[in-house]
Amino acid sequence: MKKALAIDIGGTKISNCIVKETGEIVSEVEKRSTPKLFSEIKNLLTEIVKKYENDVDIIAIATCGAVNNENTGIVGSTGNIAKEYPTLKFNELSKKTVFVENDANSAAWAEHIIGASRGYAHSVMLTLGTGVGGGIIVDNKILKGKNGAAGEMHFKMRTDRHRSCTCGSFDCFETYASGNGLKDTAREMLKDDTLSSYDVIDGVKKGDERFIRVFNQWQNDIKDGIIGLSNIFDPDCVVLSGSMAQFVDTDLVTKLVNSDIVTTPTKVVRGSAGNYSGMIGAALLAMGVK
Amino acid sequence: MKKALAIDIGGTKISNCIVKETGEIVSEVEKRSTPKLFSEIKNLLTEIVKKYENDVDIIAIATCGAVNNENTGIVGSTGNIAKEYPTLKFNELSKKTVFVENDANSAAWAEHIIGASRGYAHSVMLTLGTGVGGGIIVDNKILKGKNGAAGEMHFKMRTDRHRSCTCGSFDCFETYASGNGLKDTAREMLKDDTLSSYDVIDGVKKGDERFIRVFNQWQNDIKDGIIGLSNIFDPDCVVLSGSMAQFVDTDLVTKLVNSDIVTTPTKVVRGSAGNYSGMIGAALLAMGVK
Repeated sequence: MKKALAIDIGGTKISNCIVKETGEIVSEVEKRSTPKLFSEIKNLLTEIVKKYENDVDIIAIATCGAVNNENTGIVGSTGNIAKEYPTLKFNELSKKTVFVENDANSAAWAEHIIGASRGYAHSVMLTLGTGVGGGIIVDNKILKGKNGAAGEMHFKMRTDRHRSCTCGSFDCFETYASGNGLKDTAREMLKDDTLSSYDVIDGVKKGDERFIRVFNQWQNDIKDGIIGLSNIFDPDCVVLSGSMAQFVDTDLVTKLVNSDIVTTPTKVVRGSAGNYSGMIGAALLAMGVK
Repeated sequence: MKKALAIDIGGTKISNCIVKETGEIVSEVEKRSTPKLFSEIKNLLTEIVKKYENDVDIIAIATCGAVNNENTGIVGSTGNIAKEYPTLKFNELSKKTVFVENDANSAAWAEHIIGASRGYAHSVMLTLGTGVGGGIIVDNKILKGKNGAAGEMHFKMRTDRHRSCTCGSFDCFETYASGNGLKDTAREMLKDDTLSSYDVIDGVKKGDERFIRVFNQWQNDIKDGIIGLSNIFDPDCVVLSGSMAQFVDTDLVTKLVNSDIVTTPTKVVRGSAGNYSGMIGAALLAMGVK
């Protein structure tokens, strides 16, 4: 059975593990902070690859940033990581094939093969974390677009430049549906600039009505975004993953979405491919598991 | 060379003509008002088919409403047409094959084969008319979704239930980017409930600053919708067709979109497949022209 060395390269952490064709992780998962300097990132990756490449058939990289349609390198912006990172020549890291895919696309693929959207040809995955990532499966394939950059969930929830987004624009879905979005919604609604998303989650658990109102607004914004995506894609399901997904009432959101869409009914479900779905998905893609 | 009898079935008009494999219309285009009663619609279609079916190889229907993935019938809502219309058994209209596709998807296909998005694998088409229709080409195929209903441009431009949409929901792209949207924007901004979209277009031509402000707001809303679609699809181009498209400054919108997206640069262009692109596209699809 084939095995891949999977590496997840994010703005905060670089993780790695070994993944089998079944999607099973068969090693420890190692994690380090992402170095600040590009040269250090390159050295760390080289070190990880050297340590494991002889044990595996292929190197699979799930990375921040848009990845080209050849799965060899990065196109476009990458967010919070050394600015030279997009110039990295991934194929020089190993004598074995180095396969690269965007982290959210990889996670969507893991859900598609072994997770919550398994068996469905059409799905939309949203990772609700500090920000919002996205991966879209159309007809059992990842939606990549002309240069591989598709699936960015930066569509606007309002058009009056209310909240600035990490992408440089305003009022993208991310600025409302993310953990940071929940924090900002709390601060706006309750007029208290010290509040965090944890305060809201805590408050909801304690039954505090003010926080329940904030939470419902946040969930409603997520629902409104999903309505648009459902009308655009007519998906079998919408998968919510990431650290904030656990708080969403997926049954309620499914009901609200289906009462408002013009396409055919869909369902909103929580992801089930786990915290390492990015690495698992990249490994499955690299090994050609469809 | 193959020929198709093409019929466009809309809420207002039913049109028909004969289309060659090249996309050329080789007959007069006949137009009638869409009858109110379902039985009358059926009779009219039967009459058109009887008159022409012996002259053609296949019947191609571009229709309002979402069409199933088998291209045989309608799923989901159809807007302003007899409510039993979705139950129509299209295959009973002729002994020849009756191929059915959504009108906006058909128009997008015409643009893809003989029009403004020719030669591009990835494009988004928006028809800006009284409402807004949409057709999306992903990897040289029409995006259909699980039941064929994909490509509905009903994503929200705001989330505070400001304008009601024909789809039953609120604040969809259509309620801002359509001709009706332009009218509503004028009435809101200038506080005059008698204004029409024609007043705005006239006013802009005359250099009236108030109407120029309204028009710019309308065009800006279109631009904001296109930003979201570009980030989701990373398309080669976005094609604007329909009666309102002629007024959009596509060069300016291209520039504004590209300065705001996180994906790779795209271009916004006007459709060039003409007013009968729905019939042409359905005919090309029916005859298997890719």
